[in-house]
Amino acid sequence: MRTSYSEVIYRNSDGHVIKFNIVTNETEVLLSNTTFINFNVDKYSLSPDLKYVLFAYDVKQVYRHSYMASYSIYNIHTREVWALDPPEVGNSVLQYAAWGVQGQQLMYIFENNIYYQSDVKSNSLRLTSSGKEGVIFNGIADWIYEEEILETHVAHWWSPDGERLAFLVLNDSLVPNMVLPRFTGTTYPRGKHYPYPKAGQPNPVVKLFVVNLYGPTHTLELVPPEVLKLREHYVTMVKWISKTKTAVRWMNRAQNISILTVCDTTTGACVTRHEESSELWLSKQTQEPVFSRDGSRFFLTVPVKQGGRGEFHHIAMFTSQFRADQNEVRHLTSGNWEVTRIVAYDENSDNLYFLSTEGSPRRRQLYSVKTVGLFPRRCLTCDLNKAHCLYFDADISPSHQQIILKCQGPGAPTVMLHSLDTSNYYILENNSLLKSALRFKRIHLTEFRTVPIEHFDLPLKILYPPDFSESKHYGLLFVMDSAPGGQLVSEQFSVDWDSVLVSSHSVVVARLDARGSGFQGQRLLHELHHRLGTVDLQDHITAVEYMLKFPFIDRTRIALFGKGYGAYLALMLMKSTDSLFKCACAMSPVTDWKLYASAFSERYLGLPLRDDSRYQFSSVLQNVQAFRDQTLMLVHGTADANIHFQHTAELVKNLVKVGANYSMQIYPDEGHVLSEPSLHHLHSTLTSFYRDCLKEELLPPSEEEEEEEE
Amino acid sequence: MRTSYSEVIYRNSDGHVIKFNIVTNETEVLLSNTTFINFNVDKYSLSPDLKYVLFAYDVKQVYRHSYMASYSIYNIHTREVWALDPPEVGNSVLQYAAWGVQGQQLMYIFENNIYYQSDVKSNSLRLTSSGKEGVIFNGIADWIYEEEILETHVAHWWSPDGERLAFLVLNDSLVPNMVLPRFTGTTYPRGKHYPYPKAGQPNPVVKLFVVNLYGPTHTLELVPPEVLKLREHYVTMVKWISKTKTAVRWMNRAQNISILTVCDTTTGACVTRHEESSELWLSKQTQEPVFSRDGSRFFLTVPVKQGGRGEFHHIAMFTSQFRADQNEVRHLTSGNWEVTRIVAYDENSDNLYFLSTEGSPRRRQLYSVKTVGLFPRRCLTCDLNKAHCLYFDADISPSHQQIILKCQGPGAPTVMLHSLDTSNYYILENNSLLKSALRFKRIHLTEFRTVPIEHFDLPLKILYPPDFSESKHYGLLFVMDSAPGGQLVSEQFSVDWDSVLVSSHSVVVARLDARGSGFQGQRLLHELHHRLGTVDLQDHITAVEYMLKFPFIDRTRIALFGKGYGAYLALMLMKSTDSLFKCACAMSPVTDWKLYASAFSERYLGLPLRDDSRYQFSSVLQNVQAFRDQTLMLVHGTADANIHFQHTAELVKNLVKVGANYSMQIYPDEGHVLSEPSLHHLHSTLTSFYRDCLKEELLPPSEEEEEEEE
Repeated sequence: MRTSYSEVIYRNSDGHVIKFNIVTNETEVLLSNTTFINFNVDKYSLSPDLKYVLFAYDVKQVYRHSYMASYSIYNIHTREVWALDPPEVGNSVLQYAAWGVQGQQLMYIFENNIYYQSDVKSNSLRLTSSGKEGVIFNGIADWIYEEEILETHVAHWWSPDGERLAFLVLNDSLVPNMVLPRFTGTTYPRGKHYPYPKAGQPNPVVKLFVVNLYGPTHTLELVPPEVLKLREHYVTMVKWISKTKTAVRWMNRAQNISILTVCDTTTGACVTRHEESSELWLSKQTQEPVFSRDGSRFFLTVPVKQGGRGEFHHIAMFTSQFRADQNEVRHLTSGNWEVTRIVAYDENSDNLYFLSTEGSPRRRQLYSVKTVGLFPRRCLTCDLNKAHCLYFDADISPSHQQIILKCQGPGAPTVMLHSLDTSNYYILENNSLLKSALRFKRIHLTEFRTVPIEHFDLPLKILYPPDFSESKHYGLLFVMDSAPGGQLVSEQFSVDWDSVLVSSHSVVVARLDARGSGFQGQRLLHELHHRLGTVDLQDHITAVEYMLKFPFIDRTRIALFGKGYGAYLALMLMKSTDSLFKCACAMSPVTDWKLYASAFSERYLGLPLRDDSRYQFSSVLQNVQAFRDQTLMLVHGTADANIHFQHTAELVKNLVKVGANYSMQIYPDEGHVLSEPSLHHLHSTLTSFYRDCLKEELLPPSEEEEEEEE
Repeated sequence: MRTSYSEVIYRNSDGHVIKFNIVTNETEVLLSNTTFINFNVDKYSLSPDLKYVLFAYDVKQVYRHSYMASYSIYNIHTREVWALDPPEVGNSVLQYAAWGVQGQQLMYIFENNIYYQSDVKSNSLRLTSSGKEGVIFNGIADWIYEEEILETHVAHWWSPDGERLAFLVLNDSLVPNMVLPRFTGTTYPRGKHYPYPKAGQPNPVVKLFVVNLYGPTHTLELVPPEVLKLREHYVTMVKWISKTKTAVRWMNRAQNISILTVCDTTTGACVTRHEESSELWLSKQTQEPVFSRDGSRFFLTVPVKQGGRGEFHHIAMFTSQFRADQNEVRHLTSGNWEVTRIVAYDENSDNLYFLSTEGSPRRRQLYSVKTVGLFPRRCLTCDLNKAHCLYFDADISPSHQQIILKCQGPGAPTVMLHSLDTSNYYILENNSLLKSALRFKRIHLTEFRTVPIEHFDLPLKILYPPDFSESKHYGLLFVMDSAPGGQLVSEQFSVDWDSVLVSSHSVVVARLDARGSGFQGQRLLHELHHRLGTVDLQDHITAVEYMLKFPFIDRTRIALFGKGYGAYLALMLMKSTDSLFKCACAMSPVTDWKLYASAFSERYLGLPLRDDSRYQFSSVLQNVQAFRDQTLMLVHGTADANIHFQHTAELVKNLVKVGANYSMQIYPDEGHVLSEPSLHHLHSTLTSFYRDCLKEELLPPSEEEEEEEE
């Protein structure tokens, strides 16, 4: 979806790509849905001049964000189509391809090198030559940068005029390679090797370059601040703030020192504009600062102490005084809620637009705040369709006249276009298909509660069967599928396999945002420092006890489901409780933090030193005898590039040694995100596992009943 | 165990190595059990001069027969001990080490090269230099030779005087490598690559050499017969028949032409002594011919037509006439039973000793037959402890005066020494510990029956609970853990996990030797030609129907267990029947013969050509929809070097696609033979799986009951 001053381009639910003029109310089909079908297109994007479309075919997921694909260029006017290939390569599969920001600028990444075309017909220019598969990455992230640092595979950034391209070079030559085995598809399957730094192992070495594309190409390195130059560090954010200047955030490996610099890409000189440090770790390091046009002022959310309630992320306005590295800081917002994203800054009207959790951490509303005076703020979405829309995301047009509002819950998601000038609303997508599909379904009822614990009220989301009655007895399933800093209890719309369990099998499902979860201030978040799987574990036990006070919960029928970090937690919970939980399923569990990604494990547990007692203490692999009489199911894809199958294998080996029972579901050659058929299979596996585990016993259980799950 | 003219050396149940003189009745402890404990010895062997012992430590299994180990030499007299290492290598791990045949001759294999020492203190001589891990194998088998051709990892043979050593050189450079992934043990586990020729893939190229060890070493190649020289072939057997002559069997890749040559190792000249060919495939290709001292006569079992009942393996005496390649052939035995092994030839008394199935294919009795006159034969074991001993193995002393008789069933195994001179018997091992352990156990009852089918009466072995009553109802488990040519129904003693199921959980267990099984003649064996998983499948269904005629078998409770080929069969049975079987467990199944070993798959199905319909038809992976409503458990070690985890992975992928349910038990990094803890876990898993599956339903089954296994 793109917006210009008065036009918005989007693909509608029929599959047509539409240009809609908000002023004239005119609609034009730029690309019909048949084009997508005819060319078997998986993804598309329009050239900046709207004359061409880049089609991606045969998309093959690599990691969470990245994918390999073949590309072709389609001339909308002539319907001519041709393949996008590097010079002298046919039928190429590219790591990345996209339009630039001007005209028909194109760039793509092939074999870890960046290629550039000034227009669709011009020759490709190779901007880098150091690229080497699994070793040197130009402009594209390696696994750890994609998953844990940038949270995208894109490691390059266009200057606003398209004259310059900033990009990372990641040197993984010292990073040990992990092998993802392969079992199927060929007679002699071959595994995949890729660099994956585990806790304490060598990280990739990062460098940031800017290449000048107009005239003779010239590449310049932007160097890290002095204090980080000789230390291991990450580049966590790059953002152009003018035609020649970029803001860059650098962070040390321990993740407790972060420096925001502004670099002049004509000279390579970088000036520190902001520093953060912590005794624990720093969060929100991918956050982009919003700068004024002249660069003298910028906005950033920073942790601000709110009386005795600890720090919350609020908007700070930094205005440079005398020297660039001396700022006057003004806090535009405050309170025991968080600003989750600064959306836009309208210098003309002195309005800053942002999303926040004001009112409730479950919600996201769009606000504007004046950057002058007493910083009055105004909610733009709080009165908008309150019954269905409490969780918004927003994009604002370059002119700051139109806002695209994405209502993501609690009702079925919709997309609206809101004109700030006219205050009119246009529905771009009302999701009528989903809405009508849901109309005749038995949908769960949702209740939000809080569980008081120490200084906190932990949010709890409970799903009840549609025919719920307090006089009946229900099994209870705790779902844990979030990681530290994440959030399970929100107003976002979702219908998943657990909804089926609630609606069709009369199970009550609960989700807790325990200590360590996000969007409720730094103090709650930081509770996990150096103690993964401890306080969050206690919180879940407290929440179970809280739920057990309800007479309709059957205390003999409580189950756990966890995924990733949540699977780790589920296993730790099973280990540390005796017969509180009747069964648990752990999907892609981390069982030993030493085997997980450096950037994640070290953030919470520090570097594993010779005395790695913190790592040992937090490992699932210790004292697995506790699993002996538990009903446990393990689920894992054998080619999981994020949490390696290794974690489950080490656990299984230990379980076998102590003769513990468990069932398992292995998805051969599947990654962290399962393919469609496997997902389908998983959901039916989970539904039947919990249905059996949580069903009401009509008879007194026989002595063998407990061991039945195999 | 070794025998000389009047002495036998063996390790008794206390762990002492004993020398027993049969003439003087004296016993001497050569090596006490404390020596084994003190040196932490896994395996041992005595030098030919009985002065030294070779100890093996840290034994690590490689494939079925092979293992890596460290070795040391122990002087029995001085108790001195020192490590056996190749020159300039410390703490070596060897692929093989053993005494030669004279004095203190030693040979070992390190990094695929053969080393020789003329005595314990002399320097090592490297006999080969071409050895390369995973590529060139000298004197030791690669995977396919170990598993399918030689049925041992030993690919070298001493001449009787120790002057010469024959050895194979296997060149695997064109054989594709399979990867056994590794998941546990280190932070970055590495898989293992090894050459494994799958059906239709390049096989290792074999050459046979003889090295002269006395005087200047000299190596000579023994070349295959002209007809096989330019065709792919195997060497299946090498046996020295005099100080300078070896018998060698060569077989073409299709396994239907086999040539027995006698080679003069001083000149390299080989003469064909016997040829076999078949339109199907040839069996018993590792069988060693027994030669007379002068080499003019030899004995071999060959298929002989027995009227209308097809061919059975019987002893043929080949006597050379005029030219070495022209034999007079006399058949010493006949009948619709098989000679299973020729044990020895006593030229002085004209007696040939052999084991056969005469009387019953379930039994093995030792016979002697005169090689002159009307070939009268005599059973030596038929009247020996008939109640407990019906299945014998035998070794005869070089003087042909003593026989070691191993009674392997149906009672607890015992070992006897029988003097042919005095007709005395000495019990070397009466297995009293096992016997007393069994005395207080509830042991199953065994019954043998036959199932009539077409021209055959197929043997069936049934185990009943000790308190079996015809008026009760029992669940039935069919166990299939044999391969084509194998035998399940015999009098061999065995107590396994299924015995527990019979004795403690009142299940009836049945084993069938279906068409394709061994020891009942060639016609039954060859029934599987080009149709694996068809006639044997039908036979099992017939056998189930046969069992269902018994009123005490509950037709709603029939289960299957299969391992390896049997697992393949179990899966094919589940696929082709609707609700005959309530559940099945397939352990290490072959699911696609194209993914299995060349020598095995091609023996039964031929080379997979462009039209590989035979392979497709016999694949489990076709039409897996049939598994949808079945209760299936899959068991596999992920590092199975014989039947790759690939087989289970491909099946699981297909099962997931069609949404079929199954449970699974994966043993990470375990091979085809499970480690002790995993085996223990497996047995408890199997017991509880079948106990649950086969238990009597006390209630009418609820609608969900059928899907309960997850």
